[in-house]
Amino acid sequence: MSRFLQACRRQRVDRTPVWFMRQAGRSQPSYRALRARYSLLEICRDSSLVAEVTLSPVEQLDVDAAILFADITVPLLGMGVAFELQDRTGPRIRRPVRSAADAEALHPFEPEATVEALLDAVRLIRRSAAVPLIGFAGGPFTLASYLIEGGPSREFLHTKALMRGQRRVWEALMSLLTDATITYLLAQITRGAQAVQLFDSWVGALSPREYAAFVAPHSRRIFEAVRPTGVPAIHFGTGTAGLLKEMASSGGDVIGVDWRVGLDAAWAQIGPDRAIQGNLDPSTLLAPPEVLRAEAEAVLAQAGGRPGHIFNLGHGVLPETPPERLRELVEFVHDYRHETAGVRG
Amino acid sequence: MSRFLQACRRQRVDRTPVWFMRQAGRSQPSYRALRARYSLLEICRDSSLVAEVTLSPVEQLDVDAAILFADITVPLLGMGVAFELQDRTGPRIRRPVRSAADAEALHPFEPEATVEALLDAVRLIRRSAAVPLIGFAGGPFTLASYLIEGGPSREFLHTKALMRGQRRVWEALMSLLTDATITYLLAQITRGAQAVQLFDSWVGALSPREYAAFVAPHSRRIFEAVRPTGVPAIHFGTGTAGLLKEMASSGGDVIGVDWRVGLDAAWAQIGPDRAIQGNLDPSTLLAPPEVLRAEAEAVLAQAGGRPGHIFNLGHGVLPETPPERLRELVEFVHDYRHETAGVRG
Repeated sequence: MSRFLQACRRQRVDRTPVWFMRQAGRSQPSYRALRARYSLLEICRDSSLVAEVTLSPVEQLDVDAAILFADITVPLLGMGVAFELQDRTGPRIRRPVRSAADAEALHPFEPEATVEALLDAVRLIRRSAAVPLIGFAGGPFTLASYLIEGGPSREFLHTKALMRGQRRVWEALMSLLTDATITYLLAQITRGAQAVQLFDSWVGALSPREYAAFVAPHSRRIFEAVRPTGVPAIHFGTGTAGLLKEMASSGGDVIGVDWRVGLDAAWAQIGPDRAIQGNLDPSTLLAPPEVLRAEAEAVLAQAGGRPGHIFNLGHGVLPETPPERLRELVEFVHDYRHETAGVRG
Repeated sequence: MSRFLQACRRQRVDRTPVWFMRQAGRSQPSYRALRARYSLLEICRDSSLVAEVTLSPVEQLDVDAAILFADITVPLLGMGVAFELQDRTGPRIRRPVRSAADAEALHPFEPEATVEALLDAVRLIRRSAAVPLIGFAGGPFTLASYLIEGGPSREFLHTKALMRGQRRVWEALMSLLTDATITYLLAQITRGAQAVQLFDSWVGALSPREYAAFVAPHSRRIFEAVRPTGVPAIHFGTGTAGLLKEMASSGGDVIGVDWRVGLDAAWAQIGPDRAIQGNLDPSTLLAPPEVLRAEAEAVLAQAGGRPGHIFNLGHGVLPETPPERLRELVEFVHDYRHETAGVRG
């Protein structure tokens, strides 16, 4: 078994596995060249392009896992949501969801119509990939926030207003998104995805109490639907230092954390029966190499050689990241030896 | 002694004290009327206007403390920094600080030239205020981030680049800002401020390790300079759920926390020898009244009647907040009785 999947299962590994969120993306010259010819959605509609983009960082960076190339908003296309994707500013939803009527106008997710190429790509990638393939989906809060705000947000005022003031609409919308997410993840697993990650990137905007009331039951349903497949699930969010117990309790074999909390403090919160993924600040890759090494070493030291650490950034690779820094970081993580014998195979 | 100051000192109080960050501001019709005639900086240059604005929420809302009306960037005017203040988007610095030469062009803070009216206002307010007056200053990281980014930021890439890549420039800038902050806070205390709050609002962007290395020594110097005055100091930041131990260790009699962490979990991290301030999500004031009451009650229940809780929002009052909601919230907090006898006088 690969060291990535072993770490997901908290088994001992020969080296700490490492991959990066957005490892395929604008930090790569090859991706930028491709994007000069195709839009993001055009790539997502062509399985051979998806496979090419998905596999490129494995070759270029020597990472221990590939993640299916797509955007978390893509399944929304199959629910009757019209939107544009912009590289820098994220999705722009044409008609934000603010009422019961808006929510009722959405329809259940139709994978065939919208993500068939992505699902075909899963099979294609599995044929040639030297490392495991991670499938993924957006978390229900994060997707709901895009639909309600109409795009990325800082304060999530419309989302919170609907959540608190129109509970039935909220539950209907979250149920619809949860159903879609389950369908989408199971379809990826059926075609061969060997792990899945739920990107509930913006749940950190909520208090632990509201997270538990408004989000956790939906996330729990997703993880419960994935569990019988035996495929490990990663539960990721940012700004979640105060939410980790609640997130872990709603599910995930691996909890993905950002840099705003010490990896050791995070692990103490989620408990020893979960693996952990993270948590270098992505902007450290823009710093001098010796700073990058020191910060990466600090993350590894906090993991302390305990089985179940997957090295990653705390959020996606920044577009301005020099590719050679990413390569050096992978090499550094692979070369790192914990002083205890714990991590050696 | 007032219940606000008693709570700062973890003494028993008759009712939980409550005040709001930005209680004087755009949520008040009286403030909006005044701003139709004066800019924010014009108000800050007129001591009687400052006194009027500072005291207005005490009368309108029945809060237990007043906070000097000003913007955290005002002292920068006395350091040779040119900027504009915009209501919605925050400060715009004309020439961002990115190099040693930029940092050297700044000069030490000159209170007389820039904040004399604010300091005069402190005396004026003390003559008529029925509640304690809180002085305040921006924290060194937050001020540095405005100077370096040129304004508010989401990712603080320039700030982190300078901090990691130009350590000497960073330390020089932070030392200058720390000196300015100490001068400014001591001047407010000398004129009569009965407590001070350090708004290091954006430190939550840093990992605990980088916070401890790059910020904590400067914050510590500020709290050590204030301590001999005997005036309680509040140490505030947002998104700090993973930083609370480090923040508490750098100082503050009271630690201000936002809603992204449970008040009880936060208190467990900072330890029982500190008071705590917070932590209702400001957007809850836009929710239906019964939701507002339930969330406020949850905060109070988490405090559990332990001495040393000052009720506040987790960040400033949003401009769209209905004033009557704020009044109802103050009344609710004052009427709340913990089931244990702890909080009763």
